[in-house]
Amino acid sequence: MQDTRVRGTPARGGIDEPGSSPLDPLFHPRSVAVIGASKTEGKIGHSILKNLAASGYKGPIHPVNPKESEILGLECYPSVSAIPGEVGLAVVAVPAKLVLDVVKECGEKKVPSLVVVTAGFKEVGREGLELEKRLTALCEDFGIRMVGPNCLGIMDTHTPMNASFSQGFPHRGDIAFLSQSGALCAAILDWSLERGIGFSKFVSVGNKAVLSELDFIQDAALDGYSKVILGYIEDVKNGEDFVEAVSRASRKKPVVIIKSGTSQAGAQAASSHTGALAGSNLAYDTAFRQAGVIRAETMEELFDYAIAFATQPIPPGPRVGIVTNSGGPGIIATDRVEALGLSMARFQKETLEVLRRTLPPAANIYNPVDVLGDATPELYREAFRHVLGDPGVDAVACLLARPAGIDPAEVARGVVEERERFPAKPVVAAFLGGETMAGANDVFRGNRIPTYEFPERAIVALAGLHRYSELLKEPPPGEGVRFPDVNPDEVKRVFAAVRAERRLVLLGSEAHRVAAAYGINAAPIDLATRVSEAVGAAEELGYPVVLKVASPKIIHKSDVGGVKIGLETPAAVREGFLEILENVHRALPRVPVNGVEVQKMMPGGTEFIVGVSRDLQFGPLVMFGLGGIWVNLLKDVSFRLAKGLSLRETERMLMETKGYTLLRGFRGRPPLDVEAVKETIARVAQLVSDFPEIAEMDINPLVAYESGVAALDVKMTIS
Amino acid sequence: MQDTRVRGTPARGGIDEPGSSPLDPLFHPRSVAVIGASKTEGKIGHSILKNLAASGYKGPIHPVNPKESEILGLECYPSVSAIPGEVGLAVVAVPAKLVLDVVKECGEKKVPSLVVVTAGFKEVGREGLELEKRLTALCEDFGIRMVGPNCLGIMDTHTPMNASFSQGFPHRGDIAFLSQSGALCAAILDWSLERGIGFSKFVSVGNKAVLSELDFIQDAALDGYSKVILGYIEDVKNGEDFVEAVSRASRKKPVVIIKSGTSQAGAQAASSHTGALAGSNLAYDTAFRQAGVIRAETMEELFDYAIAFATQPIPPGPRVGIVTNSGGPGIIATDRVEALGLSMARFQKETLEVLRRTLPPAANIYNPVDVLGDATPELYREAFRHVLGDPGVDAVACLLARPAGIDPAEVARGVVEERERFPAKPVVAAFLGGETMAGANDVFRGNRIPTYEFPERAIVALAGLHRYSELLKEPPPGEGVRFPDVNPDEVKRVFAAVRAERRLVLLGSEAHRVAAAYGINAAPIDLATRVSEAVGAAEELGYPVVLKVASPKIIHKSDVGGVKIGLETPAAVREGFLEILENVHRALPRVPVNGVEVQKMMPGGTEFIVGVSRDLQFGPLVMFGLGGIWVNLLKDVSFRLAKGLSLRETERMLMETKGYTLLRGFRGRPPLDVEAVKETIARVAQLVSDFPEIAEMDINPLVAYESGVAALDVKMTIS
Repeated sequence: MQDTRVRGTPARGGIDEPGSSPLDPLFHPRSVAVIGASKTEGKIGHSILKNLAASGYKGPIHPVNPKESEILGLECYPSVSAIPGEVGLAVVAVPAKLVLDVVKECGEKKVPSLVVVTAGFKEVGREGLELEKRLTALCEDFGIRMVGPNCLGIMDTHTPMNASFSQGFPHRGDIAFLSQSGALCAAILDWSLERGIGFSKFVSVGNKAVLSELDFIQDAALDGYSKVILGYIEDVKNGEDFVEAVSRASRKKPVVIIKSGTSQAGAQAASSHTGALAGSNLAYDTAFRQAGVIRAETMEELFDYAIAFATQPIPPGPRVGIVTNSGGPGIIATDRVEALGLSMARFQKETLEVLRRTLPPAANIYNPVDVLGDATPELYREAFRHVLGDPGVDAVACLLARPAGIDPAEVARGVVEERERFPAKPVVAAFLGGETMAGANDVFRGNRIPTYEFPERAIVALAGLHRYSELLKEPPPGEGVRFPDVNPDEVKRVFAAVRAERRLVLLGSEAHRVAAAYGINAAPIDLATRVSEAVGAAEELGYPVVLKVASPKIIHKSDVGGVKIGLETPAAVREGFLEILENVHRALPRVPVNGVEVQKMMPGGTEFIVGVSRDLQFGPLVMFGLGGIWVNLLKDVSFRLAKGLSLRETERMLMETKGYTLLRGFRGRPPLDVEAVKETIARVAQLVSDFPEIAEMDINPLVAYESGVAALDVKMTIS
Repeated sequence: MQDTRVRGTPARGGIDEPGSSPLDPLFHPRSVAVIGASKTEGKIGHSILKNLAASGYKGPIHPVNPKESEILGLECYPSVSAIPGEVGLAVVAVPAKLVLDVVKECGEKKVPSLVVVTAGFKEVGREGLELEKRLTALCEDFGIRMVGPNCLGIMDTHTPMNASFSQGFPHRGDIAFLSQSGALCAAILDWSLERGIGFSKFVSVGNKAVLSELDFIQDAALDGYSKVILGYIEDVKNGEDFVEAVSRASRKKPVVIIKSGTSQAGAQAASSHTGALAGSNLAYDTAFRQAGVIRAETMEELFDYAIAFATQPIPPGPRVGIVTNSGGPGIIATDRVEALGLSMARFQKETLEVLRRTLPPAANIYNPVDVLGDATPELYREAFRHVLGDPGVDAVACLLARPAGIDPAEVARGVVEERERFPAKPVVAAFLGGETMAGANDVFRGNRIPTYEFPERAIVALAGLHRYSELLKEPPPGEGVRFPDVNPDEVKRVFAAVRAERRLVLLGSEAHRVAAAYGINAAPIDLATRVSEAVGAAEELGYPVVLKVASPKIIHKSDVGGVKIGLETPAAVREGFLEILENVHRALPRVPVNGVEVQKMMPGGTEFIVGVSRDLQFGPLVMFGLGGIWVNLLKDVSFRLAKGLSLRETERMLMETKGYTLLRGFRGRPPLDVEAVKETIARVAQLVSDFPEIAEMDINPLVAYESGVAALDVKMTIS
């Protein structure tokens, strides 16, 4: 097999070299058994054995099949227990109904790692799910690390080992790839072979009954030869662990993931495909961002990023230089630079001077530098050298089209040689045209410069590198802020009282008590069941007050005449109390009413919302946005996972919304109390993290003043 | 040369067949002269002659070069006038300084069409621009249709004729391509040759000194063999003509354009590249949409659309069926369907039943249909037939990955055969994997089924087809509404008075008079220079009134104490008048004040904005959005070209903004007067179309009531 390993990537020493990841024994086993090995070509048990032998795996290979004595020239054993000596890895390709027995035998033989390719588990329905649960339990009992079931297998090009039934083995390289779809594995393998793209590991994760995407991401972050971690996933197995572990991994190596099932129809399809129960796309987006995952929108983007990360340094900044021999592609690339959050570098005077001296008068010496269509390879090289060397340039995109009478490969060689002088700056290429550019693209690929079919994609790749550089600049996610002045016992008391009444929806007075117990400035509410109680409460709270009907069944209280505001006297309170009960009774005669809530009326101000929703996979998410009617109208909100939320992140939440402009003092209005808003969000996060029974919570409006905030209306539901 | 012309495309009869487009003589000339033909290989004048001969052009070819008697076996003439008989087309490749003389000679010889490839005109600066102006004038004098200068030339595969210095000639096909970048032409030609994509025409438009993109779009819309019109442009030559003419062309054939220079840096680069002075990206977006142009965001998208439009019918609706043999790609495609505004088809009962009978139990019979990885070509074909035949399916995407032990080409052949039964439904394919799928992709390409590397791109292509089908459903753009009850003379009087004072910014009282003259309900404003005038005005308008300082120099009037609202009595008006003058004098002692404006105070309501800006290329654009502080905060606005604006389009403007939700009555609020808002927008459009001297205009706020609207503040600047 051709070794297209790129320069500078050391081959791994071999199966005897100790590793640092708990999965090293899986990827570099001392010996491999293939259980269910077959003599019949086309059978999976045959393909695996053949692949293993063909991949250059250096340890002993033991086929297991009670009916054969030899397969492909290897001695065949009737069972795994019959194999003399240790077995490092067993690949299981027996029918589903035999898998549990085989795994048990492996456990007794102390086989540490398994790959179960057999299908017929969770993905086929309830019976399969039961079988899979027993499989998981068995592996846990024996402490076996298992890949699958229902997968294509695993490959490691550095061991080397192909423990899969794939057709083909990837080139050796720097990209660790994991996929929840075996078919995509196969397609991508084909595709990479054609393009000479190399992989370090290739993992088909299958049903993730034991080992999941998280284990493989952590492993690849630790291994000595993967430079970028690439994944296709349909769901994550454990959302909260995922965020915590991947945010560490993503600081070691870029983690680029395409997550499918983002649309409603797509999620349904994913669920029927693998039985995966995915959280919401919003939660994934939030979680991925917090985990430092670079999310690819399309398969193409995934690979465009991958080859850039595998070969290029992380750029020091966003400033892109472009060298082209024609205007059109230069303009197209320039458009993309701005659209993707990069910026066009401004050259320093010295660069402009030397370019002016070097290039013909009709050339463009400003960025994008256009050396013109008739430029020689030497001239292109010269221009590239000066652009790359300019201290204001962080990365360079090289474009070429219609090279009149010159060899594009020579231009490519010039780029390759010059770029060595500035190894810290990424360089990408898009030489446009088909066969004309094949030679040039070979030169680039052979020299670790990623090359793209269109200029836009070259810039997308630079934008991916830049996103990662921004991520590395951020302080690592911390523990999250925790306020000590909270009173969980008070919250427990309220919840107990609510449950005692067999309710899940809290009354306003209760929700405000819970919020206040966590230091949120919720305007206090007293529940009055009689006129005298209402007046007493108003006297104690101070006028003016607001009266609201108290009933978990009534959502739009104003609509039924259930709200009175700005009551200034005991008489007004008395009158308001009776009027509310009368109105509500007239509008909704059969709805039970708990009484009337009395709340001190707070001054008006700019209204925001702080809300909480709970995701199946990732736990509670907190939301911030413009409040009042604007919430539903504008949907201008930002989200974070509640767990581990830091004050720094709450500031970013504000900044992601248009509400931030209002908070900072918009068009002459005074700035509002940003710190108090941030603290409120953080306290809400702490509350819902401490009490998983809070299913939903909304503060709307949270009114922000020049000094302080007030939560005027808190809604809460427990589960 | 290989003829990869796809089935069903008739070859054009030849150069003698009359055409229906004014550019037919250009694309099918009876004879061609190459002025500046050269014997030296590598020279442009040599390449053109060689290309012309090699392309199979059937008419006489006449090289012109005073120093040669024969080139490439063709008799060479000293000048174009020395050629016996008519010359249908002259391709000019002489140095820039000789071009005018050559063109003059062509004019005298009555050559109707020219292609000037020579560079050194507008793109090189002021002198070149002068030369180009003289070239244009010369062509106009002689009535010559000229392509260029500074271009690669033109090609027509049906004539056939290659009148360019390109390397290579495209396959014959259905795509008409025009490009403002010669380099892109060359790159795309290479690229298409590699993929077997065919073109009908290939035009490098160059500097567009005479013929522009518009001429070529109109021509391709009329010719008998182009099915889709594709363009790369950096600017359009005449914005208003463009919209009108292309909206007709785009109803005949899809017009797909990538416009570069959309970013600020990109526009600068474009301007330095061709000397193009482009309008704003916003104006292009608006104009393209109104012209029915399908705008491609990237080069890749341009071609993904192109091969779909060239080969597929326009789908009857948005409902997509997906057939796949593996879950992952199916989910990825499903996600895209929803994201791109298509919908997943729901199969009828009969389809589900037959799929259930046909497919194995583990298969997914719901959309996306998953026939599973071990499906035979027959099974795939069966599933495809039923999905395609379902009356609820408008288009089908066929996906394949990891075909275990089967020949993907056989799957492709099955698709090709079945699709013939439903020729009205588009079918696209994405068979994933590299070389493995080469045979299948050949089958698809040979049978007019577009095939894509990734599932996402197949869905992008279907979305493009669907966008076009939506366009065709719209009534054709009409003349636009015109209200008869307008008073242009009043507007002229106001403008004359403003100009007489050497001002360009109108006072509020003036702007309100102009708006009122066009039937816009602008709350009347009187300008008072003395207290008594203010009181008189208030008495006449009716209380309460608002007073505002009148000065074109003061933008934020409230900030300097220049506004008093809710004045109910003559005494309050008197006091307010004096206070305003005092405040303003104190804050801005040197700013001249024209007096104080008295306006009847209108009741509050929901605030909108109607604005006008003028684009260099496309003339005035009207804008609608949420008013007040929300304009700047939310930027939630919609735009249309003022010219020819219909009431139907004003309704769409409303619907494109969040303001529409408010207008329709949001969360229990009463609906507002949508018709009055629409009429106001249309009247503003009429006003600014009638008076090109209006440079800017803003109504902010336009207050909408349950019945009627009021323009509370109208600002206007003339030029």
